[in-house]
Amino acid sequence: MLTIEEYRSQFLSYLNDFQSPSSPKNLYEPVSYILGLKGKRVRPILTLLTCDIFNNKYSDALDAALAVEVFHNFSLVHDDIMDEANIRRGNETVHKKWDLSTAILSGDVMLILAYQLFENYKGDTFVSLAKLFSKTAIEVCEGQQMDIDFSKKDNVSSEEYLKMIEYKTAVLIGASMKMGAIVAGASIKDQNNIFEFGKNLGLAFQIQDDYLDTFGEEEKFGKKIGGDILENKKTLLFIKAKQLLNFKENEKLTELYSSKLIDDGSKIQDVKNLFEKCNIPEIITSEIENFTNISLKMLDELQISCEKKDFLRDFANSLMKRNI
Amino acid sequence: MLTIEEYRSQFLSYLNDFQSPSSPKNLYEPVSYILGLKGKRVRPILTLLTCDIFNNKYSDALDAALAVEVFHNFSLVHDDIMDEANIRRGNETVHKKWDLSTAILSGDVMLILAYQLFENYKGDTFVSLAKLFSKTAIEVCEGQQMDIDFSKKDNVSSEEYLKMIEYKTAVLIGASMKMGAIVAGASIKDQNNIFEFGKNLGLAFQIQDDYLDTFGEEEKFGKKIGGDILENKKTLLFIKAKQLLNFKENEKLTELYSSKLIDDGSKIQDVKNLFEKCNIPEIITSEIENFTNISLKMLDELQISCEKKDFLRDFANSLMKRNI
Repeated sequence: MLTIEEYRSQFLSYLNDFQSPSSPKNLYEPVSYILGLKGKRVRPILTLLTCDIFNNKYSDALDAALAVEVFHNFSLVHDDIMDEANIRRGNETVHKKWDLSTAILSGDVMLILAYQLFENYKGDTFVSLAKLFSKTAIEVCEGQQMDIDFSKKDNVSSEEYLKMIEYKTAVLIGASMKMGAIVAGASIKDQNNIFEFGKNLGLAFQIQDDYLDTFGEEEKFGKKIGGDILENKKTLLFIKAKQLLNFKENEKLTELYSSKLIDDGSKIQDVKNLFEKCNIPEIITSEIENFTNISLKMLDELQISCEKKDFLRDFANSLMKRNI
Repeated sequence: MLTIEEYRSQFLSYLNDFQSPSSPKNLYEPVSYILGLKGKRVRPILTLLTCDIFNNKYSDALDAALAVEVFHNFSLVHDDIMDEANIRRGNETVHKKWDLSTAILSGDVMLILAYQLFENYKGDTFVSLAKLFSKTAIEVCEGQQMDIDFSKKDNVSSEEYLKMIEYKTAVLIGASMKMGAIVAGASIKDQNNIFEFGKNLGLAFQIQDDYLDTFGEEEKFGKKIGGDILENKKTLLFIKAKQLLNFKENEKLTELYSSKLIDDGSKIQDVKNLFEKCNIPEIITSEIENFTNISLKMLDELQISCEKKDFLRDFANSLMKRNI
């Protein structure tokens, strides 16, 4: 096994050598641009290290890892249009830097380029990768649609919310790992267990992300605290609070969430106070632990050495401590 | 072999039975909507009849035919956004009937659903279909990008224009046929020849479409005559005229094409007069014949019976007479 930092640098060097066609320029420049923005590259790293877990030859999985990263960036380009986001990773989004048509079309071509990368694998492997990829990609689209629907809907249940983040975020984490396992020729059982490991870790990570957005420390989290509150985002914190607060408190929360015009500092603090009143920090922390534990429990099932299980456990813990 | 009308009705009944998932509703309703709009279904019919040409069992090709139609409709949904089109086949476009996000995301999911339909084929066939599909889909995106680029560019050559329509339109006609051949287990040589047959027929058809938009009869063509001129579209007619007209006439053409505000009737007539002055009708008609002949010439190479060659020849002629 390599270190996470080594996997990252192996991937970055492969990404760097990846030449999408050069013409038409207006189609492919945005592809290079978005792929070149600094990111943590968690998904492709997971593909590489999972391949190593099962056959010690991560380099076999470089094309699958690249497909996962290209797909992830496709989804960012199209989601940024839908969210009317201007900034991505500290730089202009594609539709902002170029225009709407360019962002749609460059996104489309990235989705196809991702499929094309599987052509570097032999028949059976190609088929398994492409099937998993299609299933995952459809779920990611469905998750994005649920997210859009929820923003316009009044009563979203915890179950619905968890399904949304499972589809929008977690299944791609699971699939990134499963692809590494497929390339390595792991058993179907190991493939499915590593998928569940990744998916549940992804759920824990995403819920923690929501938690830190409200209760984290700015320096450690790397983003401004309270962004979700200012955007009236219906995260798990909000959904659970709605269930737990009394009628009057609920009215207050609804009122705070009905306007984007309230003075920033006080709105964030007022919402946080309501969240704390009904123990949201404890409740959410326990949800995060719950999914982390489900994830780690999957390790017991894997047909791999104890050292490799330790590696995956360390990885999961580092990820949750935001050290990766 | 069936008649074209029979292939169409077989396809429509298969399309009708095709159930995309029902939830999230906002994601899949637009998919059913766009697939349900009346169209000629030329591409899937080509897939089915080509399969029959090579193994007499068109029903094997129904999923490939559906994939082609789903992909074609994906491209319509996204192109309509880029073209800011409000009407498609006499109905509202998806982004107009719903909204931008819905049109982007429903389009994305259709592209993936098309790939998923290939999962109904066995390993080798799946791989061949998916590879051809990715190559074709990328070219369609590149063609769309060239089309957008050309609308902002002053000097587009005939060669560049032909490349654009080859990618944007003709390769998908070729690929629709080649997929039928792949499913039928035709030889690689036959697969490639039928692709060239379809591609060149597609080129002839598209150039004829441009020709009829200016010089056709409204009742037969089914669209208002002069649309391309009013939109200042740089079709092959315009590009060739620019090369042939003298300096003064060229200035006049440029002037006519620089405004959308000129009174409709006179603008169309003025441009037509300039086109006729330099024999555009004859020149373009001869280009159409040229590509039709290249297409028909491919029939000589195919390892199929004379009756089947006659069938393809009749099909090509009917298509060019706009009887299909």
